[in-house]
Amino acid sequence: MYKDTNRRSIAKGISWRIFATLTTIIIVYLLFGKLDLAVAAGAIEVIAKIILYWAHERLWVNVRWGRKRIEPFNLWFTGIPMSGKTTIADKVYKELQKLDIPLERIDSKDIRELIPDIGYSREERNQHIKRIGHLIATLQNNAISTVASFVSPYRESRKAIHNMVKNNVVIYIKADIETCIERDYKGAYEQALRGELKNFTGINDIYEEPQNADIIIDTDVMSIDEACRIIVKYVKKRYTK
Amino acid sequence: MYKDTNRRSIAKGISWRIFATLTTIIIVYLLFGKLDLAVAAGAIEVIAKIILYWAHERLWVNVRWGRKRIEPFNLWFTGIPMSGKTTIADKVYKELQKLDIPLERIDSKDIRELIPDIGYSREERNQHIKRIGHLIATLQNNAISTVASFVSPYRESRKAIHNMVKNNVVIYIKADIETCIERDYKGAYEQALRGELKNFTGINDIYEEPQNADIIIDTDVMSIDEACRIIVKYVKKRYTK
Repeated sequence: MYKDTNRRSIAKGISWRIFATLTTIIIVYLLFGKLDLAVAAGAIEVIAKIILYWAHERLWVNVRWGRKRIEPFNLWFTGIPMSGKTTIADKVYKELQKLDIPLERIDSKDIRELIPDIGYSREERNQHIKRIGHLIATLQNNAISTVASFVSPYRESRKAIHNMVKNNVVIYIKADIETCIERDYKGAYEQALRGELKNFTGINDIYEEPQNADIIIDTDVMSIDEACRIIVKYVKKRYTK
Repeated sequence: MYKDTNRRSIAKGISWRIFATLTTIIIVYLLFGKLDLAVAAGAIEVIAKIILYWAHERLWVNVRWGRKRIEPFNLWFTGIPMSGKTTIADKVYKELQKLDIPLERIDSKDIRELIPDIGYSREERNQHIKRIGHLIATLQNNAISTVASFVSPYRESRKAIHNMVKNNVVIYIKADIETCIERDYKGAYEQALRGELKNFTGINDIYEEPQNADIIIDTDVMSIDEACRIIVKYVKKRYTK
């Protein structure tokens, strides 16, 4: 959230003066036909009105009326591990930061660092997602939009998020499991395949595909840049202006 | 966060016009000595400039320059159970909401509902407090101030909060343990005294008094209203304007 500084009010005063004094000179000239007096009237006006404009701006700084709360949204990236959620979400976040909206990035790994004892069973995952929902809702209460990326394999937890937050945009990052296993630089799939990781989505735990995702990104046929462009366009169309 | 609506820009245009056209009429009258022409010049100006002022406002809506990020603060209420933390914090929150600042209320019980499995051992309490610190820091990133009330009996966890957040104001709600036991409408002290609750602050777990609280409220000698007034005054002096 921002508030107008004194300097801004002064700059607006000067910028306005250029418009306004030119108009005054034209009006006085058209009425009296005397250019010298018109310019003189303009000159006096410049000094008096820059000060008045500034004072007028400072009065309005304290008026709440006529301001609209910015409507927050949540981009919810879901998909199996290594599908590209975090990469695409990071890029979308970076793009959206260029717009003048309050925005927060939430990623699975940051939250799991804070709550390390949470497991990967169905019940634990669902509870975990509800906490994320609470965090997003708190941010939304303050007009902050979010870019969130979580495997979130179960329909019920994605539905819980949908019920907890406003303007929820489900973005399904679709990727072939074979491709993800190839991309597996973290070695997580390998561990899961060896049976060392339990409840690993795609290997020994299911991923329930979203039935009504708002955007589907098929990473097998679409580049990261293309995906990012599509998502940013979607957001700009619906949630800015 | 707010943005200026079209209506606000129009209203500012009209409000400015009243100031400005009166000035123009006076200037033209002083220069030409003709009141009728001065009023005519004023009349033409009114129409032309309300429209120009509105256009000028809409241009500035897109300019970020000269806006200052609001500086967030955190009020951290600490004290033994039933000392009056929640009651005083609620009242302070309500008072501060009247100011035009983004503000969030965080209470121990709301957070424990979200993370019910967390215990009351020293380690668990400290970890719990770190999560709260992360939540407050995330809100502060977005210029949102917080009113937080937590027993937070250990110096180390209060110190952790202090290191994680900006403009942290420690408010120690001091109350005699006997008074708190009398006030015990929740029956928690009773349970603790019977030995049914472990790690209950004040009974079978220590409360380490804050050494450098910014504000100390002694509830044995101070009313809730008085306490609230002192805290709100402190905040207004430091963190508004």
